Amino acid sequence: MRALYFDGDVARVTSIAEPESFPDSALVRVSLAGVCDTDLQLVKGYMDFRGVLGHEFVGTVCEGPGELLTRRVVGEINFSCRSCALCKTGLERHCPNRRVMGILDADGAFAEYVRVPIANLHPVPDSVPDEAAVFAEPLAAAFEILEQVDVGTGSDSLVLGDGKLGLLIAQVLRGAGARVRVVGKHPEKLAIARRLGIETVLRDDYRAEPMSLVVDATGRSDGFECAAAAVKPRGTIVLKTTVAVRAEIDLAPLVINEVQVVGSRCGPFPPALRALEDGSVDVASLIHERVRLTDALEALRIAETPGALKVLIEAG
Amino acid sequence: MRALYFDGDVARVTSIAEPESFPDSALVRVSLAGVCDTDLQLVKGYMDFRGVLGHEFVGTVCEGPGELLTRRVVGEINFSCRSCALCKTGLERHCPNRRVMGILDADGAFAEYVRVPIANLHPVPDSVPDEAAVFAEPLAAAFEILEQVDVGTGSDSLVLGDGKLGLLIAQVLRGAGARVRVVGKHPEKLAIARRLGIETVLRDDYRAEPMSLVVDATGRSDGFECAAAAVKPRGTIVLKTTVAVRAEIDLAPLVINEVQVVGSRCGPFPPALRALEDGSVDVASLIHERVRLTDALEALRIAETPGALKVLIEAG
Repeated sequence: MRALYFDGDVARVTSIAEPESFPDSALVRVSLAGVCDTDLQLVKGYMDFRGVLGHEFVGTVCEGPGELLTRRVVGEINFSCRSCALCKTGLERHCPNRRVMGILDADGAFAEYVRVPIANLHPVPDSVPDEAAVFAEPLAAAFEILEQVDVGTGSDSLVLGDGKLGLLIAQVLRGAGARVRVVGKHPEKLAIARRLGIETVLRDDYRAEPMSLVVDATGRSDGFECAAAAVKPRGTIVLKTTVAVRAEIDLAPLVINEVQVVGSRCGPFPPALRALEDGSVDVASLIHERVRLTDALEALRIAETPGALKVLIEAG
Repeated sequence: MRALYFDGDVARVTSIAEPESFPDSALVRVSLAGVCDTDLQLVKGYMDFRGVLGHEFVGTVCEGPGELLTRRVVGEINFSCRSCALCKTGLERHCPNRRVMGILDADGAFAEYVRVPIANLHPVPDSVPDEAAVFAEPLAAAFEILEQVDVGTGSDSLVLGDGKLGLLIAQVLRGAGARVRVVGKHPEKLAIARRLGIETVLRDDYRAEPMSLVVDATGRSDGFECAAAAVKPRGTIVLKTTVAVRAEIDLAPLVINEVQVVGSRCGPFPPALRALEDGSVDVASLIHERVRLTDALEALRIAETPGALKVLIEAG
């Protein structure tokens, strides 16, 4: 099959064997896959990954249990052992033995086919088109914040970063009843947020006005310090940025202001699929371009362009 | 009156005017005061403080409202405005207009007399001797953790640091039902914890065994990274260390493991006084030496000695 394969040095579209079967897995024919900033980091050496890239996808089960066969599905990316202490306490996403699709020891979805544990698959409601379903994974990551933090109705929140994830998070927080403001540096991305009824501020015009909840979705190494400067005493910072570099940080203000910092990664798919079904989160406006799998390298290049939003790879 | 005054350059015991009155304050004749590591930082330039040092004290009200006159009292250190938005939501300890006794714009308790807002004073139960009451402030800071984190019965916790605060925190966590282990580098301090029935590990022998709750009370700039290495996925780090230097930190593990970091500073006095009254927290074993106010400089010197515990200054 055709796939975008990263050999640890170079990423190229090439022909490789179809994914090998493993216990309790299904084979999914990929329809659409999304490029995430993590993919861009991986080809720079993050996680020391080798294999097929891609962890955001929608596809059709072509080999697997009867109830899933021919169903359109999306899939959670953490392949956990389901037997360790963490798995047994419901923290499968933190399984120390996990493989992670397209990120850690498991091939990903920038390919014609991908193998996924059956337990990780979620059928897509008929009314949700592929172009929306492919956002299930990053949208679930946005919903993770609601699992971790009590986002009260009317609470004041700030999202730092107007990228794909920032714009999803802003919508999720608003849906939870928070007053939301997005700070970003791209007028055209902030315009998308405004069209969705979300208040925005251009970064250069932003003057810190401390908020109860600040989400760092900048993807930048200075995102944390920007968040620390923007949060109220006893407020909460949610960290969504994973940057491979170390940052020099002054922790004293966290202690003095008794700030809470919450690291946040993957999230629950069911609320994400419900939001795509009921239209409470808009993803159509986040699609930047669609590229065929043959041109997947070009997809990465476009995704890296300043100002780019979600680039989709058509595998089907 | 006699006081330990820091002029921004040199700390010396000297004779200064008695504290000036301010609205809704009481004059307290200090009996005993405790040296905190923050005092040692202040004379090195932290907070750019000038004035009388000291923020842990017990004394007797000699000028103030009738119901407090002649009463033994301890006092909260944050002098808040009681009118701003934070004060009105019960976050007086985070008042942006606050002065802080012996730390920020307010004279402290290494003196014969100290002035304190009446609202900050707490009468000391008769059964609690001065030698115990003087620990109310740092013990309240230990109890602050219970206000911020749900320390469940049987939860596994690790206290990094066997100093004064670490040994108080370990006792408070154990009192809340947690299983507690203290990691430290001073065999004689760890022996105190063991005599109180708390499990200990010498730092050199410590092998990370991830815990749900890790408290950094090391007072060292690498305390945070040690805590990050010792916490379980989805676990909590409580930061008690305020260090004036910036640390180079890798935030990615916080995000990947969805760790929660909680900055923690001053705490509630009532539970601290109750614990001193019912004896559930032992402080007698934390007293290192008593020094007269005349020799307060020597008290700072002793407090800085490696291995020193609480040095008390006799002002009365």
